[in-house]
Amino acid sequence: MKKSLLALAVLGAFAGAASAQSSLTVFGIVDLSVNSVKNGSITQKSMGSNQLNSNRLGFRGTEDLGGGMSAGFWIEGGMSNDDGTPGGLNFQRRSTVSLLGSFGEVRLGRDYTNTFTNVASFDAYGANGFGNFSNIYASTPAGLGSGATTAVRANNMVGYFTPGNLGGLYGSAQIAAGEGTKGNKYTGFRLGYAAGPVDVAVAMSQTDLGTADKYKVFNVGASYNLGVAKLLAQYDQRKYGALKYTSYQFSTSVPLGQGEFRASYAKGNAEGGTTSANDASLLGFEYIYNLSKRTALYTQYGRLSNKGASAIALGGVSTGSGFTSTGYGAGVRHIF
Amino acid sequence: MKKSLLALAVLGAFAGAASAQSSLTVFGIVDLSVNSVKNGSITQKSMGSNQLNSNRLGFRGTEDLGGGMSAGFWIEGGMSNDDGTPGGLNFQRRSTVSLLGSFGEVRLGRDYTNTFTNVASFDAYGANGFGNFSNIYASTPAGLGSGATTAVRANNMVGYFTPGNLGGLYGSAQIAAGEGTKGNKYTGFRLGYAAGPVDVAVAMSQTDLGTADKYKVFNVGASYNLGVAKLLAQYDQRKYGALKYTSYQFSTSVPLGQGEFRASYAKGNAEGGTTSANDASLLGFEYIYNLSKRTALYTQYGRLSNKGASAIALGGVSTGSGFTSTGYGAGVRHIF
Amino acid sequence: MKKSLLALAVLGAFAGAASAQSSLTVFGIVDLSVNSVKNGSITQKSMGSNQLNSNRLGFRGTEDLGGGMSAGFWIEGGMSNDDGTPGGLNFQRRSTVSLLGSFGEVRLGRDYTNTFTNVASFDAYGANGFGNFSNIYASTPAGLGSGATTAVRANNMVGYFTPGNLGGLYGSAQIAAGEGTKGNKYTGFRLGYAAGPVDVAVAMSQTDLGTADKYKVFNVGASYNLGVAKLLAQYDQRKYGALKYTSYQFSTSVPLGQGEFRASYAKGNAEGGTTSANDASLLGFEYIYNLSKRTALYTQYGRLSNKGASAIALGGVSTGSGFTSTGYGAGVRHIF
Repeated sequence: MKKSLLALAVLGAFAGAASAQSSLTVFGIVDLSVNSVKNGSITQKSMGSNQLNSNRLGFRGTEDLGGGMSAGFWIEGGMSNDDGTPGGLNFQRRSTVSLLGSFGEVRLGRDYTNTFTNVASFDAYGANGFGNFSNIYASTPAGLGSGATTAVRANNMVGYFTPGNLGGLYGSAQIAAGEGTKGNKYTGFRLGYAAGPVDVAVAMSQTDLGTADKYKVFNVGASYNLGVAKLLAQYDQRKYGALKYTSYQFSTSVPLGQGEFRASYAKGNAEGGTTSANDASLLGFEYIYNLSKRTALYTQYGRLSNKGASAIALGGVSTGSGFTSTGYGAGVRHIF
Repeated sequence: MKKSLLALAVLGAFAGAASAQSSLTVFGIVDLSVNSVKNGSITQKSMGSNQLNSNRLGFRGTEDLGGGMSAGFWIEGGMSNDDGTPGGLNFQRRSTVSLLGSFGEVRLGRDYTNTFTNVASFDAYGANGFGNFSNIYASTPAGLGSGATTAVRANNMVGYFTPGNLGGLYGSAQIAAGEGTKGNKYTGFRLGYAAGPVDVAVAMSQTDLGTADKYKVFNVGASYNLGVAKLLAQYDQRKYGALKYTSYQFSTSVPLGQGEFRASYAKGNAEGGTTSANDASLLGFEYIYNLSKRTALYTQYGRLSNKGASAIALGGVSTGSGFTSTGYGAGVRHIF
Repeated sequence: MKKSLLALAVLGAFAGAASAQSSLTVFGIVDLSVNSVKNGSITQKSMGSNQLNSNRLGFRGTEDLGGGMSAGFWIEGGMSNDDGTPGGLNFQRRSTVSLLGSFGEVRLGRDYTNTFTNVASFDAYGANGFGNFSNIYASTPAGLGSGATTAVRANNMVGYFTPGNLGGLYGSAQIAAGEGTKGNKYTGFRLGYAAGPVDVAVAMSQTDLGTADKYKVFNVGASYNLGVAKLLAQYDQRKYGALKYTSYQFSTSVPLGQGEFRASYAKGNAEGGTTSANDASLLGFEYIYNLSKRTALYTQYGRLSNKGASAIALGGVSTGSGFTSTGYGAGVRHIF
């Protein structure tokens, strides 16, 4: 969905090296929706960003270095367009420089972690909206009190990504410097296989917290595209000492002419310590009507049931625990 | 003044729908001036942003969806170029996504409120510089202690704007979700008529503060273009419980070859409670010399007289109340 | 290195004036490296930004006004791409509007100060990396407790720059309004001569702190390009009351095919008050391999020896004073 809008010739070329094609792309997404979320008996109406895709503004480019090699950069920041991004534009969604060649890609900077990329890849929603899996697996109980900051992205990371010609095999490995901050030191890998209608991948990581226990994540997902529908399933497990949070999700996306229907069911199970009763389940639906490749109208619904001390809300205001959180809304997403 | 500088073809088009023209525009204004402001006996020299137009950097674009419909986005942030915008670039000037068609425009996000748009439209200066009306009507006494955050813009807003083919009639309606924050819940409309040299419009709004009293704004303005000069007049009233602030302004802009001369007189009157003596008046002049359509040199002067407890300053440092605030300066404005 | 990537025609032209070429350029640098710094016995590994060039994102443009005159703007902000610039994008690297003609350039806004520009011009590294001179001359002891904020850039500045046709002579003068803030009020000039292989320049400034003593900087530098190597030397002196910090640097850059080798030695000497023993010296090396004009791999090394109470670190974590700080690393720099 992040297609190139600008492709502009670079003036001049390196003396002695073959001249090269280059591009600079300004890109982004504005996604705004009108929502209502009810947690227990408390209802709040709101305007939301990010419900179909995450709002963003970015700049990226590649430079052909000749000899099959290229360099690239990618800086991308989030936006909350409902209130104009009062915290200001940063580039914390992604901030990288890369060298690419027949060997694959070496990427330096702030980026998604492998274990997050894997989960988002096998969720019909990606990681957005009321029904998406991250509502459960990345929620507070799943952090297990570890203080790890690497659930979605990591700073100071060196990553390696395999090239695209390995007969369907793909993979990546990442290591992030802690720089003396607890919860930042990440090591992870991802390995997958995609061919025809099949895609399956596994990812593992650990975050060094400078304590005896490390925060460990393992997940595996698979999808199969039947044509009339794509079926996705995945399993995620997080551990920190005696604590464990296990979750799984089944989801599907069904193309319907210019539209698309998505549905999902997910469940999370807490074990160990005092979190044992903190289970949660999530049911979600979404319908998207594409006005063009870039502009879509959508509506969505999610219902999250907390058990015991679990207190996951789909937004809005909540008190206590064990409540049911339901959210629905409708919006417009425009890609530029 | 926000004309399109870039217009770049988008690669690719939606399968099954008519291909479409699209554009992405990077735009902005850098306006810097050297100023001196004297409040009572205290004089301060400074470099100022925003004295002729508000400094900004923005990204906007439209996509033709076929069938007379289009989609668009607009993200725009303020800059203080005298010090490099230390708070960082956000998009709080405007942050919207729109659907447009023969029905008009539906716009979601952070945007100007109707009651602000109306006032700025009938001020020869817009809303910038030493002489501009907002120095009086949007100043502290006019807030009436209400805590409303919607004097200029509102978050979480759904707006509707009429199409351009209603025989000179134009209008808009806006509603903004409060999201549980006092002073954010805005409802307002604007209705106007423009034909030939005449333009007249009225706007009303109320902001729900979660208290018994609402913050209410009403204003009406008119302009007539004689050719040798444009004459503008307006009236603005703000109420909160027993408190009321009423102000009016007369202004004019006179084209002089490549230049333009502007002058204004405004007066504000406080009633109710302890603010009764807080009147203020403002006299302003401005001369603009256009080096091109985009680049201008300008000089301006404003003199604001406070009465009683009124303590409005045109900048700089001030103490006490009832003082006279005079400001003058000269600057360069460059639109890109 | 800041060459134009985009050059786009502006639509429309000023009525009555000659139409004009204009450009808007989006530009930047992403430079990331893997580093190790050891201060005394404490070693820290990290990912760093800015080690070869300062990371940045900017927008700049010029407008031809006809008659040999033009207008321009330049807004440029720093980025820390190792962590995605959590503080957000601002334009504190440079934020200016200019008028240019046969008379030279008048520039308003936030910009480099003359005394900084001069020092960076005669350092083979510019002002980046483990070996660069600013590690010594701009470090804490060199600030002399003055609180001046003008060591590198100043807000609220009006600058004048000579045109390029003065037979090798070049110069600039700058004055910055204090706006009531101590340490902001800057006055400075720079005067130089460049012809063939020779470049020599001097700069002086004083910052008015609202106290009896002013913070005064003087520096002078020279370079000679032998072809096989460029030799650079400079001297910098800073005074605040009885305190004085004097430093000098010798550096060289040697082109080696597609690569370049740089080396330097610098020394700083503190006098007056309790800072007398705070001397420091710095040895640096750097090798750059250019994959293209825009993309380079590099490695660098610096060794800074503190004496007495001097406690300058090349990064990482340090305690106490008088330690030796050594840093080395390797990285990728990509200009867009």
